[in-house]
Amino acid sequence: MRHINELREGENVREIYLCKQTQSLQTKTGKTYYSLLLQDKTGTLDGKVWDITSAIEHHEAGEYIMVDGRIVMFQDKPQLNISRIRRAREGEYDPADYMPSSDRNIDEMYSELMALGAQIKTPYLQKLFRSFFVDDAEFIKAFKYHSAAKAVHHGFIGGLLEHTLSVTNLCDGFAKQYELLNRDLLLTAAICHDIGKTRELSAFPENDYTDEGNLLGHIVIGIEMVDDKLRDIPEFPKLAATELKHCIAAHHGKFEYGSPKLPAICEAMALHFADNLDAKMESMKELLKGVDEKADWLGFQRNFESNVRRT
Amino acid sequence: MRHINELREGENVREIYLCKQTQSLQTKTGKTYYSLLLQDKTGTLDGKVWDITSAIEHHEAGEYIMVDGRIVMFQDKPQLNISRIRRAREGEYDPADYMPSSDRNIDEMYSELMALGAQIKTPYLQKLFRSFFVDDAEFIKAFKYHSAAKAVHHGFIGGLLEHTLSVTNLCDGFAKQYELLNRDLLLTAAICHDIGKTRELSAFPENDYTDEGNLLGHIVIGIEMVDDKLRDIPEFPKLAATELKHCIAAHHGKFEYGSPKLPAICEAMALHFADNLDAKMESMKELLKGVDEKADWLGFQRNFESNVRRT
Amino acid sequence: MRHINELREGENVREIYLCKQTQSLQTKTGKTYYSLLLQDKTGTLDGKVWDITSAIEHHEAGEYIMVDGRIVMFQDKPQLNISRIRRAREGEYDPADYMPSSDRNIDEMYSELMALGAQIKTPYLQKLFRSFFVDDAEFIKAFKYHSAAKAVHHGFIGGLLEHTLSVTNLCDGFAKQYELLNRDLLLTAAICHDIGKTRELSAFPENDYTDEGNLLGHIVIGIEMVDDKLRDIPEFPKLAATELKHCIAAHHGKFEYGSPKLPAICEAMALHFADNLDAKMESMKELLKGVDEKADWLGFQRNFESNVRRT
Amino acid sequence: MRHINELREGENVREIYLCKQTQSLQTKTGKTYYSLLLQDKTGTLDGKVWDITSAIEHHEAGEYIMVDGRIVMFQDKPQLNISRIRRAREGEYDPADYMPSSDRNIDEMYSELMALGAQIKTPYLQKLFRSFFVDDAEFIKAFKYHSAAKAVHHGFIGGLLEHTLSVTNLCDGFAKQYELLNRDLLLTAAICHDIGKTRELSAFPENDYTDEGNLLGHIVIGIEMVDDKLRDIPEFPKLAATELKHCIAAHHGKFEYGSPKLPAICEAMALHFADNLDAKMESMKELLKGVDEKADWLGFQRNFESNVRRT
Amino acid sequence: MRHINELREGENVREIYLCKQTQSLQTKTGKTYYSLLLQDKTGTLDGKVWDITSAIEHHEAGEYIMVDGRIVMFQDKPQLNISRIRRAREGEYDPADYMPSSDRNIDEMYSELMALGAQIKTPYLQKLFRSFFVDDAEFIKAFKYHSAAKAVHHGFIGGLLEHTLSVTNLCDGFAKQYELLNRDLLLTAAICHDIGKTRELSAFPENDYTDEGNLLGHIVIGIEMVDDKLRDIPEFPKLAATELKHCIAAHHGKFEYGSPKLPAICEAMALHFADNLDAKMESMKELLKGVDEKADWLGFQRNFESNVRRT
Amino acid sequence: MRHINELREGENVREIYLCKQTQSLQTKTGKTYYSLLLQDKTGTLDGKVWDITSAIEHHEAGEYIMVDGRIVMFQDKPQLNISRIRRAREGEYDPADYMPSSDRNIDEMYSELMALGAQIKTPYLQKLFRSFFVDDAEFIKAFKYHSAAKAVHHGFIGGLLEHTLSVTNLCDGFAKQYELLNRDLLLTAAICHDIGKTRELSAFPENDYTDEGNLLGHIVIGIEMVDDKLRDIPEFPKLAATELKHCIAAHHGKFEYGSPKLPAICEAMALHFADNLDAKMESMKELLKGVDEKADWLGFQRNFESNVRRT
Repeated sequence: MRHINELREGENVREIYLCKQTQSLQTKTGKTYYSLLLQDKTGTLDGKVWDITSAIEHHEAGEYIMVDGRIVMFQDKPQLNISRIRRAREGEYDPADYMPSSDRNIDEMYSELMALGAQIKTPYLQKLFRSFFVDDAEFIKAFKYHSAAKAVHHGFIGGLLEHTLSVTNLCDGFAKQYELLNRDLLLTAAICHDIGKTRELSAFPENDYTDEGNLLGHIVIGIEMVDDKLRDIPEFPKLAATELKHCIAAHHGKFEYGSPKLPAICEAMALHFADNLDAKMESMKELLKGVDEKADWLGFQRNFESNVRRT
Repeated sequence: MRHINELREGENVREIYLCKQTQSLQTKTGKTYYSLLLQDKTGTLDGKVWDITSAIEHHEAGEYIMVDGRIVMFQDKPQLNISRIRRAREGEYDPADYMPSSDRNIDEMYSELMALGAQIKTPYLQKLFRSFFVDDAEFIKAFKYHSAAKAVHHGFIGGLLEHTLSVTNLCDGFAKQYELLNRDLLLTAAICHDIGKTRELSAFPENDYTDEGNLLGHIVIGIEMVDDKLRDIPEFPKLAATELKHCIAAHHGKFEYGSPKLPAICEAMALHFADNLDAKMESMKELLKGVDEKADWLGFQRNFESNVRRT
Repeated sequence: MRHINELREGENVREIYLCKQTQSLQTKTGKTYYSLLLQDKTGTLDGKVWDITSAIEHHEAGEYIMVDGRIVMFQDKPQLNISRIRRAREGEYDPADYMPSSDRNIDEMYSELMALGAQIKTPYLQKLFRSFFVDDAEFIKAFKYHSAAKAVHHGFIGGLLEHTLSVTNLCDGFAKQYELLNRDLLLTAAICHDIGKTRELSAFPENDYTDEGNLLGHIVIGIEMVDDKLRDIPEFPKLAATELKHCIAAHHGKFEYGSPKLPAICEAMALHFADNLDAKMESMKELLKGVDEKADWLGFQRNFESNVRRT
Repeated sequence: MRHINELREGENVREIYLCKQTQSLQTKTGKTYYSLLLQDKTGTLDGKVWDITSAIEHHEAGEYIMVDGRIVMFQDKPQLNISRIRRAREGEYDPADYMPSSDRNIDEMYSELMALGAQIKTPYLQKLFRSFFVDDAEFIKAFKYHSAAKAVHHGFIGGLLEHTLSVTNLCDGFAKQYELLNRDLLLTAAICHDIGKTRELSAFPENDYTDEGNLLGHIVIGIEMVDDKLRDIPEFPKLAATELKHCIAAHHGKFEYGSPKLPAICEAMALHFADNLDAKMESMKELLKGVDEKADWLGFQRNFESNVRRT
Repeated sequence: MRHINELREGENVREIYLCKQTQSLQTKTGKTYYSLLLQDKTGTLDGKVWDITSAIEHHEAGEYIMVDGRIVMFQDKPQLNISRIRRAREGEYDPADYMPSSDRNIDEMYSELMALGAQIKTPYLQKLFRSFFVDDAEFIKAFKYHSAAKAVHHGFIGGLLEHTLSVTNLCDGFAKQYELLNRDLLLTAAICHDIGKTRELSAFPENDYTDEGNLLGHIVIGIEMVDDKLRDIPEFPKLAATELKHCIAAHHGKFEYGSPKLPAICEAMALHFADNLDAKMESMKELLKGVDEKADWLGFQRNFESNVRRT
Repeated sequence: MRHINELREGENVREIYLCKQTQSLQTKTGKTYYSLLLQDKTGTLDGKVWDITSAIEHHEAGEYIMVDGRIVMFQDKPQLNISRIRRAREGEYDPADYMPSSDRNIDEMYSELMALGAQIKTPYLQKLFRSFFVDDAEFIKAFKYHSAAKAVHHGFIGGLLEHTLSVTNLCDGFAKQYELLNRDLLLTAAICHDIGKTRELSAFPENDYTDEGNLLGHIVIGIEMVDDKLRDIPEFPKLAATELKHCIAAHHGKFEYGSPKLPAICEAMALHFADNLDAKMESMKELLKGVDEKADWLGFQRNFESNVRRT
């Protein structure tokens, strides 16, 4: 398969892509043309159909289409001038090729997360962990393939898992360095901190905010999800449950990021740092991936409130 | 009964008060004395036992005690020099005399609130309202006698009810003026917006933040309480439930006041205004109550970011 | 009349519109064309004159013109390709058709406001109210047809009146609910709070900031206008005048919105809430009006610091 | 006269001071004593009357009293143990000795300000200047002896004049350096920028916020005062008047300091800098005056958001 | 020479300009064209080469090119349709004509600055001043021709010198008005406050942030430069050095503008005001220069947080 | 030795303490007494000398004194009523017993830090590390025994070393988890990030801000110290030096905490997180140490913007 990020000026293309958008427009001289947004897992590409002939089969956004065309440069970016379109048939393509995805193997990451979870020694915390990550097949499936964001960082298949694993690893390190920290509580909180994202965002390929996501957010949803499981663990101490939910509530660390409470216990504080550091490191990594190897300064990044640079 | 706010310099007192605190201290010359904080529903009073004789019966904070003494002025405030203490016997006093309480009749206010609730026409919203305010005796008892705050405004018995009633009345007026507003959703949200306070704060006479109150806050608790009741109302539409919970989540209107989401629907916005206006009006009223009739400017009030004045 | 918000792709149009802007431009190939901004009370429309022939009569921005053309879509928005222009003659059009205007009848709203004003019982406040709203014909004319804003909310003919009436109604409700409030002061302040807008913004069709508006703002101007009238009411108590002017000064409720003082009396606080709530409700209404019935989420609104949704 | 800032431990005092406050208190052992706050222009002094005998004549706060006593140290500060008090008779003291006052000669400063004012060449600006500073005897008297603040900087007799002169001198320098600046407008604005303080604060010895000061502030009051004078200068151009009032409105330079508009013209910007710089320099000077010559670091000063140091 | 800011629609141009950028693009119909950004000291101009013939000599960004073409208007701005390009030969043009430059004579300004520096009486401060501005030829050359900014204010050849001179003049005035100020320290600090800009920004024609500029900023660089010179002035007192470096560190006056310390001594405070005032006055001047004489309101300026107006 | 934190009411004490402050005061009845602040490494104790007899030897703040007395409680805190004082002789006490100190062994911590430093592979970074931590005996001595703060966290002997070691350990973990990070740069930056504190604060027992500390702060000082060493490592690449200094400059992560630049490279970001996390964890630990085992909620902590709780 010829990936979008490999296409070069002048190249002739014959390939199946996912059509994310399609628009019917008119030039200034009144002639109708189509503007398409094509996607595979390596990026997106503008396509234009300047001549609408019988070679252009009708199609809708969300369909996979076989396109013939040639790459030209427009405003320094490649664009595909399309001469032929037909809808692809099931079996001609593999959906996984069309969605951005973690660089790491998903099952491998899940195994690592399970190994960390297995180290939770407190029985009721272990039980809660298992109620999500071992016993709840529907949750597991959603969790493994979800992104951690619509845009920002980890916005790809497996992103939620990759981020959760990384945060849990950091917390594990913190627990080793600081005696103050209750390791079992911290590991459980780290593993569960973003489970609400499985309902805040819809699954791929849509990956957009749900009504619930917009109106309540993944912090409140995550607490609701924990409450649901706790009904079946009657021996779970009330105070421990409150502390765990507090860690979820406070993990954004600032009111303006939607935490209704700020960290009041050291585990919540440690979780907040792990979550924030992993987000910043991944953002930096994604920023650098997106630009030319030779570029050093990447320009002002609102996210970092600074111009940012490769080292 | 001789109330604390009526005591005057030089007066001899023989009365039962609630002892909130008791401390054993020493003067600079090394003599031991006791310092007590006495309370009735009209306020608090410092008491001093300078001579610890057999007339001073042993007692603990939280007990009702009969004190004999004389009022002197210390740093412009009355203080009771105590010569005798004995613990009061059950029946000698009425606890209601010792806790600040709403000026309005609690049952009367509750009836008004029920009358407003009865106007909710949407069946599932009506059902939810009844599940708390008609069917749940334990909740009703807590709700009627709870304060709405530890300090700030409405910090007295019946304060939660008085505030809820006032907010619901304001919302009712808004719904009449603005067609945009879904009256049933707004009334339900107004009546339920602060139910989490029944668990955020402990009951009187303690009236202090619970662990749950400190770690999660009444917004998250309130949403959990709604979730609990919704289990028994299977016909409650998912989206309507999310909207109602959003109104609770967003009613503080600002992230820094602990709302994890800002108002995204007009009912949440209207509820936020009603809640905030009632808080401000009650604060102003309590401020003015606390000071001399002749004073006009009350000094800078952090709450209002301004010097404040009687009109 | 064929209104701008009803025009559909492919439709032939022959109609008089107000020409808000006109520009002479060149295509990349060097050919001159005209770009026009056309307006009626339902919205605005881009017009293009690709061929400048004798059928295109000379005209200026601000004139009413009869245009012949055809609607095409450009970047998802309708655009009028114009083949003929002639200036319209007085009598061929009614200016009221070309400016956005309140949905409600202006005289009816004015009567309602007068009825509220008539309830002011304090003689000197009643006198002040009448000096503007009964005796000053020039002011009344300006007030009735002014907008309340250049953009934001209530930016249409009658908008100032509609907003003032709504704020006064809210204040009336507050005065009934809170004994603390001096109803006469509050009603007077509500009715007068935005009178400075008659000089901050020029009249329609311009509706733009005046020099005075930019340099002083409607709060300072409004206070000056009250000062002017007070010269003829010598019995008006000095303190009452100061309180009324304070209500105007503080009605934005925050320094960063241009209030030189924050509410220091309860009437100023109540007025601020009414003003702000009405602004928010109207903004929400205008937002929803502008979008497709089927859209639920309207996207992030800076004004609300949130994505916003129809209920 | 023996000034308060010269009194030393162990010294016997017999002197007339202004009594700012007087309180009747009781020791822990129940004995009544008086606590007085005495003042002269060099500072304040705590006085205590431990024995209330016939040698202690009755007196009220605000009266001048002849006291006999001895200086002791209490918590590192001098305190006067008083054995005798009698009210002073008119003629025994000069009020000017009892209020803090500018180090500079008031008439001399006024002459300098008049000399600067005389350089305003634009006839209508000159006329406005004269209407206040030459023709209005009552205003002139108030202006010359007013303070520029209750606390903060320039809080002494002549402080308003000293600050105004200094700001005008700075503006004069700016006008020489920057051609952009309209010197006549800037000088007039500088001279008038704080005239509202003559009504925002009451005169000495009270020197406290008036109702008008609290509710409107000196910016709004100053604009009203200019409006009053402008009635008698019909030839004053409307736009020039608006610009002058804008300079007053914007001279605090930030919304949170009560400016309803930020500087929009270069003269308003220059005035803001002059006002702010003079305030900072005077604050620094007063800070350093108040402390021991040997102290270098004066501790964190909220006003400067920094620890502050003598150079 | 025909300057860019004098070119008018329809004019034929034959002139040498500096080519800042050159891009190869394609029209929608697939035809290649070139887009150039041309510059002289009066501004920049878009150039288009629609027909790529042998008359279009190859060239790179950064070269001086002789262009033949005709001015057309595109989106209200002039654009040059180019028919011929050849690279200019050394000697055909004077680089000074192609870079924005101070209106004032650079040597004259430098002499004025030297005259101010000569007034520093403290020997070690005088020595430091001379080590930069008299003895260090490389520094002097960089300083005289550097800009004070990439964009914002004083972003032209000689801008750093012009700004430094103006700030030093203001400080000289302040030192005369306020006895509190140590004139020698203040003059030295003013002259040195922005020397770090010679390394923060590269020289013209690039005038862009260096790595060091982005990573450390001119405040830290300036302190390092002072440290370097101080090695050769062993008699320079340690505390005086620290105070001078503090003035540089604190001259932005706010943490968010990159000052690691806020002004703690009066000289640092005065320097901050001078720096800020000069920046604001120059920004205002440059704003007004850029617009039509007839325009009065220039629109909202982020820099001033206000709409801004010519007086 | 009888430590201050072990003293109980009623106990007779005969022990040597460090006298931090001594004051001569007077009771209300005019009698002179002394108030002393005594210190050992476990805390501080108020001492009072009510009778000044020949048994009270003259002494100054900063001296070690042998005191005889008895512990009484005053306002719930122990206080020592002193009957005898004599100055201690050299040899009677060990200064280390009188200053708060790290719980961990200083040489052990230093060895761990050296082991981490030894892992820096890049020769010029290794050389820089050694120039401070191996070759500069004076620096090493200061670094090992310095505190990391006057108050806040790590304000004890060895605190700077303990904090630096902990931050370096965290960074080491981050470098293992994130490939993006240049481990050598990050380790060097971590080890050097707070070296400026050796000059920002004076050594124990004073441990207070120096002039340089107040005027420049440890960030600027640390950069100067690196610059000094770099003179002797000519092969150190300019860009690498700038990146290292940037890490020091940006490690506070926010302008308002005195960083003149925000993290622009990933190593600076990682260092900021490590520094901040360690500060928070240590603060939490110190908070909990200071309070009764049974207390769970510790009250609102400005540092955490939250009430804080033991888990």
